[in-house]
Amino acid sequence: MDALQTILEHRTIRKYSAEKVKPEILDQILKAASRSSTTGNMQVYSIIVTSDENIKELLWNAHFKQDMVKQAPLVLTFCADFNRFNLWCEQRNAKAGYDNFLSFYTASIDALLAAQNASIAAESLGLGICYLGTTTYMSDAIIKILELPQQVVPVTTLVIGYPAENPDLTDRLPIEGIVHFEKYNNYSKHQIDSIYADKEHLPSTKELISINQTENLAQIFTEKRYTKKDNVSFSKNFLKSIENQNFMNNEL
Amino acid sequence: MDALQTILEHRTIRKYSAEKVKPEILDQILKAASRSSTTGNMQVYSIIVTSDENIKELLWNAHFKQDMVKQAPLVLTFCADFNRFNLWCEQRNAKAGYDNFLSFYTASIDALLAAQNASIAAESLGLGICYLGTTTYMSDAIIKILELPQQVVPVTTLVIGYPAENPDLTDRLPIEGIVHFEKYNNYSKHQIDSIYADKEHLPSTKELISINQTENLAQIFTEKRYTKKDNVSFSKNFLKSIENQNFMNNEL
Repeated sequence: MDALQTILEHRTIRKYSAEKVKPEILDQILKAASRSSTTGNMQVYSIIVTSDENIKELLWNAHFKQDMVKQAPLVLTFCADFNRFNLWCEQRNAKAGYDNFLSFYTASIDALLAAQNASIAAESLGLGICYLGTTTYMSDAIIKILELPQQVVPVTTLVIGYPAENPDLTDRLPIEGIVHFEKYNNYSKHQIDSIYADKEHLPSTKELISINQTENLAQIFTEKRYTKKDNVSFSKNFLKSIENQNFMNNEL
Repeated sequence: MDALQTILEHRTIRKYSAEKVKPEILDQILKAASRSSTTGNMQVYSIIVTSDENIKELLWNAHFKQDMVKQAPLVLTFCADFNRFNLWCEQRNAKAGYDNFLSFYTASIDALLAAQNASIAAESLGLGICYLGTTTYMSDAIIKILELPQQVVPVTTLVIGYPAENPDLTDRLPIEGIVHFEKYNNYSKHQIDSIYADKEHLPSTKELISINQTENLAQIFTEKRYTKKDNVSFSKNFLKSIENQNFMNNEL
């Protein structure tokens, strides 16, 4: 399928059939991931492919027991990884200096671009995907389960399998709401109202507000889904993981 | 073109023709970016499209004067952006708590997945792209040039235009070098030698070593391209930008 069409038809899949993914299909997805842009062609990321039911159960537990982690045959954990590069440097008498935040973020970019390549490749092959934001919230648990060494941090996870549902396209903000020309043009009150109007008027939004018993959609985000309390707690956890994995030595 | 083929044929383009990108082509790229997966469908990113020659000149200066920033007709700066979401929350009497590191990283993921969608869409339409890693190194300068408000941080940049070169595919590590099955399997000395063997034996590598007067390729990375001194200095700058843009309040 045409790349644009694949991209425009993306839906997050949360229900999967029992059908396994053939190794040659997985190979194509991994090959596609490996062709993404990467800083200085260093490829400072790793992909951990988990299909073992016992390890998937542990990951399911870490990812807030979301069903699709068990259902989908493949769980791909994308990691910012300077470990491999460091080992190579060590064996070549080259003094690596990648135990800092910039290197962590550079490796994160590599890992995330590879993940999106894998996602599009999987979808173009008839598979469905779902990203797991819980990866950063529960980085410490995932590090233990997957036995990640120093200088390796999980940054996102894709579950991949054959879809057992065919959901509608999700709404998006109008393009003019997320794009700025030349410089950032900060939003007027009227613009904010206009950008969020369609989303606020969806029937599904009205249903959500009724279920959550809030005044409006924004309060569902701030009071239920992405609360300050959780964000602060997960921030501490994630920064601790980054530090524990030896990416926070920001002094010479 | 088929999505897989587009992905597998990706090359970074560093020389661009003078041909402009038509608005309807740019629209397709931006639309593709907006369809990427996004945490909780919040779309906490912005894309700044710069084509004005004066602003491009300022960006060129920030991006270490890399020629393609001036040559390519379009410069797209992808930003982690909670500003728009915060303004919406404020207008809806919802108390936003997104001034922390987790929220910055969540917004970074959104921005980077959108960037990779834009990249693949552009390539499928016959355009060439180049990612600019200098975005994080020079975040403070870019924040000033693009007038980014609080809670907006630039995380990557794509230059886009019609290619004026047709480079060969770049080498990549063998797939087994970047993929682990079930858990992380740390590398033996022999495995590291084997993973990097092809790269080390490329004629272009030998040329680079001769130009840089180092013992080997690894030392070009550690001593010339990505030195500890630069990484530490850029780490401080980037963390300062994240803090200045109000993403480092990690306490309740």
